[in-house]
Amino acid sequence: MDFNTPNDIIINTEPEKAASFLSRVWGLHPLFVCTIGNTETAKIPGLSAAGAVPQITDFTPAADMELLHYGETRCMDGIPVTPEGIPTPALLTMSSLRLADIPMLVVNSGTRVSPHTPFVDVGGSPGEDIRSGNAVRDARGVFERSRVLGQMLSKQVPFLVVSESIAGGTTTALAVLNALDTSAGNNVSSSMPTNPKELKSRIVSEALDAAGIAPGALSNDPLAAVEAVGDPMMPANAGLVAGAAATIPVMMAGGTQMATVLALVSRLAPEVLGNVAIGTTRWIMKDDSSDMARLVATTADVPLMSAALDLGGSRYEGLKVYEQGYVKEGVGCGGAAIAAVTKSGGSIGRAAILAELERNYESLLALVD
Amino acid sequence: MDFNTPNDIIINTEPEKAASFLSRVWGLHPLFVCTIGNTETAKIPGLSAAGAVPQITDFTPAADMELLHYGETRCMDGIPVTPEGIPTPALLTMSSLRLADIPMLVVNSGTRVSPHTPFVDVGGSPGEDIRSGNAVRDARGVFERSRVLGQMLSKQVPFLVVSESIAGGTTTALAVLNALDTSAGNNVSSSMPTNPKELKSRIVSEALDAAGIAPGALSNDPLAAVEAVGDPMMPANAGLVAGAAATIPVMMAGGTQMATVLALVSRLAPEVLGNVAIGTTRWIMKDDSSDMARLVATTADVPLMSAALDLGGSRYEGLKVYEQGYVKEGVGCGGAAIAAVTKSGGSIGRAAILAELERNYESLLALVD
Repeated sequence: MDFNTPNDIIINTEPEKAASFLSRVWGLHPLFVCTIGNTETAKIPGLSAAGAVPQITDFTPAADMELLHYGETRCMDGIPVTPEGIPTPALLTMSSLRLADIPMLVVNSGTRVSPHTPFVDVGGSPGEDIRSGNAVRDARGVFERSRVLGQMLSKQVPFLVVSESIAGGTTTALAVLNALDTSAGNNVSSSMPTNPKELKSRIVSEALDAAGIAPGALSNDPLAAVEAVGDPMMPANAGLVAGAAATIPVMMAGGTQMATVLALVSRLAPEVLGNVAIGTTRWIMKDDSSDMARLVATTADVPLMSAALDLGGSRYEGLKVYEQGYVKEGVGCGGAAIAAVTKSGGSIGRAAILAELERNYESLLALVD
Repeated sequence: MDFNTPNDIIINTEPEKAASFLSRVWGLHPLFVCTIGNTETAKIPGLSAAGAVPQITDFTPAADMELLHYGETRCMDGIPVTPEGIPTPALLTMSSLRLADIPMLVVNSGTRVSPHTPFVDVGGSPGEDIRSGNAVRDARGVFERSRVLGQMLSKQVPFLVVSESIAGGTTTALAVLNALDTSAGNNVSSSMPTNPKELKSRIVSEALDAAGIAPGALSNDPLAAVEAVGDPMMPANAGLVAGAAATIPVMMAGGTQMATVLALVSRLAPEVLGNVAIGTTRWIMKDDSSDMARLVATTADVPLMSAALDLGGSRYEGLKVYEQGYVKEGVGCGGAAIAAVTKSGGSIGRAAILAELERNYESLLALVD
């Protein structure tokens, strides 16, 4: 390899494919897409840390997108924080995108609160509580329109990074994984330091029961699984990847939610997988409560890599605690850091990203004061 | 000039600037943006030909975008036609974009009927009847969000073509021009062979009266003019041009409506005008009832060019009558043809576009049968 991945990008699986993917995108100018959505699932108490209280999760994705565009939020005061006051991973994404001057596009897959930014509408609606067994409207239409968008983008963009901001997304991911595969288990991550695995399992069981789905029953109808127990981000991102990766390299930026989108893509458009890689964070890879590597490896032989960011040395407690398993991933923060490294041909590394992150955090703290 | 413009592209004004613009974009891969909207103004009887009956004008822009994406409409049966059954100019745009494999993006500035395609939402709302004197909501917000979108696009796209599909748009254009300039007169075009100039003048007078605006009074507050008597396409396209033309060449594709957007840009972001050209059709330039050249020349010294398309020799009556002044312009059909020529480095010319147009028209006729 002619690039310095050992320092800034950790290759977790499929090392040859990962090296080949990185070679292909090295120096290319990526477009960063973030797909946002809201669900009622996110408001189940104890499930998501993407908001100080569950009702706030409707604002989190919109506020994240405003941060990425303007460096400040508009739909709410202050920035999204966890119940413990830990800042949104959008701060990290914003730092990588700014540093490498990477443009972005918001895809709205269905929100109750829309960002005060331009966004692409793909005809989606906010998701219901998966315990209804009827969670997502028109997943097929959203998938098809997003595929058209992916095709259009691939005619202009040499490298696409696809990410998400949707609260409660690991629970909907767990439900869809179980609808697709009897042996899915309970390997998804959590934005909380203690993964509420029992609560999630109970909700997923209730959801599958309500939908009348036996585990693994929808392996051959993945969009039916999404409509029953998923969230609107899933068909949008699956469509984007299916459309764009037909011709250009696509990095799916995220954790176990994105592994679930990969499970959809591997069933709906397996022919594009050769153009796909997954980019996540070190925090997801070192999480004992989930198993990202296994989730990806049992789905498709696409390479998995992670940004070698360590916030343990940060001057700010709110960032330092990322090392204790708070947040872990979201808003494509791992993939955005990887894209900053690849776009700059390695001249932007983790030290620069960390410095930019602290600078941005500092000015936001100043705004709040 | 090292390209064959005399055959395919007519340079109407500012020949040196036009040649320089064409040289800059020659061979570049453009993105074609079409901004759609609906207004109640379009439903005033006798004003617009963009629909067999006035109420249908709500469907025309959405159907146009579906045609461009899928080669067929989804929100309605058949394709948009004038009261006389003459097909939408989107057919011509579609032919140019397909032939040159030019990708597109829909911007929705405010519709009652949304297309079954992906589209960018810039926070706009459908326009009211301008005779209310209160026609467009939040033109400033739409302008600012569209400017952000233009900035983002300009980081990926080397050449942007900006167009519109909004019925009744020449009347709102006339109203805004008069709000901006005492000497604006009545020089806008019409989609009908006989321009209903008296009707338009009467409506514009009523609109300005209702808004309490003396002619020329809002020369220094162009977005206030849009909010009072304009339409939602205007701030969206003005923002897109202001954002993108700060760094890349932008062709404003359209007739007298686009000249009105130019009047907004010349006031809101005059510093970008050096990157702007206007591309329209021969039919607009030879229209005796309007004066595109004067409208542009009195606004800014940007070059004006037109696609040298002549449908007089078409096998189809519905296309042939474009030569009698039906339709004339819309959906950026002139600019799309120019972009097909420039992208292909001249290897796609008017003969190829005409052949593709007849082929597409034929297969749509077959679909309708």
